Amino acid sequence: MDTNGAFSAQERAAVYKCIFHRRDVRGEFLPDPVPDEVLTRILLAAHHAPSVGFVQPWVFIVVRRADVKARLFEAFVHANTEAAGMFEPGRAAKYRRLKLEGIREAPVGICVTGDRNRAGATVLGRTHQPDMDLYSTVCAVQNLWLAARAEGVGVGWVSIIRPEHLRDILAIPSAVVPVAYLCIGYTRYFHDKPELEKRDWARRIDIRECIRLEQWDGERPA
Amino acid sequence: MDTNGAFSAQERAAVYKCIFHRRDVRGEFLPDPVPDEVLTRILLAAHHAPSVGFVQPWVFIVVRRADVKARLFEAFVHANTEAAGMFEPGRAAKYRRLKLEGIREAPVGICVTGDRNRAGATVLGRTHQPDMDLYSTVCAVQNLWLAARAEGVGVGWVSIIRPEHLRDILAIPSAVVPVAYLCIGYTRYFHDKPELEKRDWARRIDIRECIRLEQWDGERPA
Repeated sequence: MDTNGAFSAQERAAVYKCIFHRRDVRGEFLPDPVPDEVLTRILLAAHHAPSVGFVQPWVFIVVRRADVKARLFEAFVHANTEAAGMFEPGRAAKYRRLKLEGIREAPVGICVTGDRNRAGATVLGRTHQPDMDLYSTVCAVQNLWLAARAEGVGVGWVSIIRPEHLRDILAIPSAVVPVAYLCIGYTRYFHDKPELEKRDWARRIDIRECIRLEQWDGERPA
Repeated sequence: MDTNGAFSAQERAAVYKCIFHRRDVRGEFLPDPVPDEVLTRILLAAHHAPSVGFVQPWVFIVVRRADVKARLFEAFVHANTEAAGMFEPGRAAKYRRLKLEGIREAPVGICVTGDRNRAGATVLGRTHQPDMDLYSTVCAVQNLWLAARAEGVGVGWVSIIRPEHLRDILAIPSAVVPVAYLCIGYTRYFHDKPELEKRDWARRIDIRECIRLEQWDGERPA
């Protein structure tokens, strides 16, 4: 493998296939175990995310025990009940019909955490943007997600859970931030579009709305 | 393209090649213009990042003007001078020898911003983790970075800059967070390892140190 090399058209297409067909999986998990060697490859991909000052702030907590998952699910239900009450009635009814996690069904859960003290108080690149280490940890999540997709493994990010409940259940110390709880497993299928788009919760924004030239209020591209 | 399909061994290898050979580019930018169609593909990849509640909170500010880059470079120098003073003397001397940005050399800069009000006050999935929209924006950065690598285009994240200077120079409103300033362009080559590793600033952590079973203080894998 030529580390400096160009990507062939086929290789480039594979990368885009992965990016465009990655999905947030909630309802399609299969109970089939994810082999250790597959999980190791996925975690190695996460570990090769960019990190500020090369501090590699992440720790991945791998959850397989049903009793731990049961407690996490309980924490989700608690938060999700609160969450539904925050929307106006019509939207709340729709919200309650959505399946938003697969904590118990997914054979593996991974809590991706960021250790804020991994490299001491002064970190190259974090001196003026203190959240850069958490952003690095998110880059690890995205690498993991894409590697999993290429392995045919689905990932779902459960954010409807109080961080203090994650801390409590997984014994995460105060200097460590639980950035993401991910449900991981093979899937019956991958949706062809994001589920929230399919279910008319939200629409894909035209990308031209998301691009500006030179300044925030600058021109949009043609 | 089968959206539900498995990835072939070749396709999977291409995704890993991209993940493992992505680099933070600072010193190797070529002046060659990045064609609009390449930039559009890279931005489309970013736009297909996961986003909490499918809010797609990102706006990409594309910077090509030399005068804008000059102001950004000045803001970097300001922050970088401060940053060097934060390390102990030996480390500071080493810090000053590192090339940490390519703002003026890279033909394109992209400021990836996250609009905190994109979908109103209550966002599905952000009710209990308020930074989820910024995390989504970081996922867009990572998608962009990987797509660029597959295109043979280098990306460097400049975090040594005060967010308020980014706001000022790029006229970013207060409800929008400048998450990342990225330098983008073709490169003379890609380093075979992260530069901070090559230059003995920091070492690659053994991945087994980054994995725990069931709990933060749980077993490490064999």
